[in-house]
Amino acid sequence: MGELRKDPVLGRWVIIAQERSSRPGAFVRKPHHEDKTDPARCPFCLGHESETPHEVFSVRDKRTKPNTPGWGVRVVPNKFPALDEKHRLMKKGRGVYDMMTGFGAHEVVIESPNHHHEAKDQTIGQITSWLEVLQLRVGEMKKNEKIRYALIFKNKGRTAGASISHPHHQIIATPVTPKRVREELVGAMDYFKLKERCVFCDILDEERSYGQRIVYENEDYISFCPYASRFPYEIWIVPKAHGIDFHTQSVKKSLPSLAGHMKHVLKRLSDVLGDPEYNYLIHVAPNRFPRFGYWKTIEDDYHWHIELFPRLTIVAGFEWGTGFYINPIPPEQAARELRGK
Amino acid sequence: MGELRKDPVLGRWVIIAQERSSRPGAFVRKPHHEDKTDPARCPFCLGHESETPHEVFSVRDKRTKPNTPGWGVRVVPNKFPALDEKHRLMKKGRGVYDMMTGFGAHEVVIESPNHHHEAKDQTIGQITSWLEVLQLRVGEMKKNEKIRYALIFKNKGRTAGASISHPHHQIIATPVTPKRVREELVGAMDYFKLKERCVFCDILDEERSYGQRIVYENEDYISFCPYASRFPYEIWIVPKAHGIDFHTQSVKKSLPSLAGHMKHVLKRLSDVLGDPEYNYLIHVAPNRFPRFGYWKTIEDDYHWHIELFPRLTIVAGFEWGTGFYINPIPPEQAARELRGK
Repeated sequence: MGELRKDPVLGRWVIIAQERSSRPGAFVRKPHHEDKTDPARCPFCLGHESETPHEVFSVRDKRTKPNTPGWGVRVVPNKFPALDEKHRLMKKGRGVYDMMTGFGAHEVVIESPNHHHEAKDQTIGQITSWLEVLQLRVGEMKKNEKIRYALIFKNKGRTAGASISHPHHQIIATPVTPKRVREELVGAMDYFKLKERCVFCDILDEERSYGQRIVYENEDYISFCPYASRFPYEIWIVPKAHGIDFHTQSVKKSLPSLAGHMKHVLKRLSDVLGDPEYNYLIHVAPNRFPRFGYWKTIEDDYHWHIELFPRLTIVAGFEWGTGFYINPIPPEQAARELRGK
Repeated sequence: MGELRKDPVLGRWVIIAQERSSRPGAFVRKPHHEDKTDPARCPFCLGHESETPHEVFSVRDKRTKPNTPGWGVRVVPNKFPALDEKHRLMKKGRGVYDMMTGFGAHEVVIESPNHHHEAKDQTIGQITSWLEVLQLRVGEMKKNEKIRYALIFKNKGRTAGASISHPHHQIIATPVTPKRVREELVGAMDYFKLKERCVFCDILDEERSYGQRIVYENEDYISFCPYASRFPYEIWIVPKAHGIDFHTQSVKKSLPSLAGHMKHVLKRLSDVLGDPEYNYLIHVAPNRFPRFGYWKTIEDDYHWHIELFPRLTIVAGFEWGTGFYINPIPPEQAARELRGK
């Protein structure tokens, strides 16, 4: 059974998940680069529904049964979950150390039956469909009061951590607010204390007036290469409307616009960098049940957004040791290339 | 010219270093795995001294001249420096953003003329020799009051970020205390406030009494797989004697003991994992000139140490998005394998 352990100096939590060491390619002693799962043996392809754990949700033809073909988007628990709702949530001390049982959830959202079409090749309708499913699943997970945070993320390509190449997203729900997210929340709160404005709204203003880091803008979303980009061609996609959560009705109305935006940006990224591997993740507000001790001004100070980074550079000792990043491509140059004009 | 940029939400600094995009393999659109620089074209090999910037220090036969053969350890500025002492240190605002010129230092310490011998194959004398040089160079950099921190690190192998396979260390000196280091310093300080003890000394006690995460112990050093290991087979090497800096006279006396310790641990790591790629780094106290605003209790609360991690797993979207790590190998199991008994 997995467990969470807390670093006594940094307060950083680590998931010790021994089950995952049996995952294909999870633990490569030498990195390897067979990039594509063979569709004939892909557990996410049509007709292979029995090779995954039972589906928890699907968008499917009403005449078909769960765990059979007929679906458009399909959600299954991760076969090698980092965290699991079956564990009872328990916390205890061990000498100077703290631990917690590996309570949480870990789901896979299979974007479409098509093994080869990444978002850039999908229809706006298909993208909108899995965006709606992501909203729904996160909303469901956040009903549990033991869950503090739910992160939606995408790993595309082996170097980016995907063990299966069939297009999919993952959601991990955790019983603590992760350190990196907490830092962002606290940073936004501190900025608000000082200025009584949302730092992300201010960043959007700055980027629109400066212009040179903008990648794309449509009706409801803006994407740009952030001023302090950690990675070459890092892109943030930010909704123009201030809002702190992704799984809301008002965001739902803008999903076709987000789908078009993502398709455009991912297509440009692929054109400029030759189909790179990448990660992206959706940063949202944590769960806010009163007994958690509220983030008082969070409705005003935080702003959900997507952070996307192609995996081009290698993160080495200096970066791990300092939290400093060395980025050889200025974001102004990256944005110019990505805009294509 | 490089510059430092600060993330307005997280306070994380990023080095935008366009010069480094011309570094061989610095910016790989597809990862590649030609692992070894050809010795005939290696700028760190004997007889190729003119292919590096002029040496700033060397351990060499007194009858030989700088930048010629005859050396045992050789220090040169990085040819593609992330930071450079030639830049004047300047800070300014840019709209909502903060920047700083790319002032600092970036040196390469070539461990020996031998292209193939990593520390595990070197003599204790050779290892002691480059450890002394590392001490010396860090001591030199820290004399500059504009330098806040100097990080010693080692990248072994392409996946770990080494662009040249000839054994070498790097030192980067920065005009700010890096975020990750500051968090560790603050964590140690907070622990001291509560308990009036050094958290690292307490961890050493705990590890020695528990025993199962210990990898090796000799006269002056203990290594163990930390309780909340981020990575499989992560190892910390910690001096038994409390001390906050690496470049001191008292550490100098223990260098042969550290050399033997490192040789043993790196040999075991290689035996167990089949010569893996790895990073390690030496965490020490920051520069402490009075005008920086001291860390008041730092002499008591901090403890220098080495953090080492083989590069076996892939850091994916979840880790980047949360600061959470998923480690499939419990440190107790890793330590058992590394102890070999």
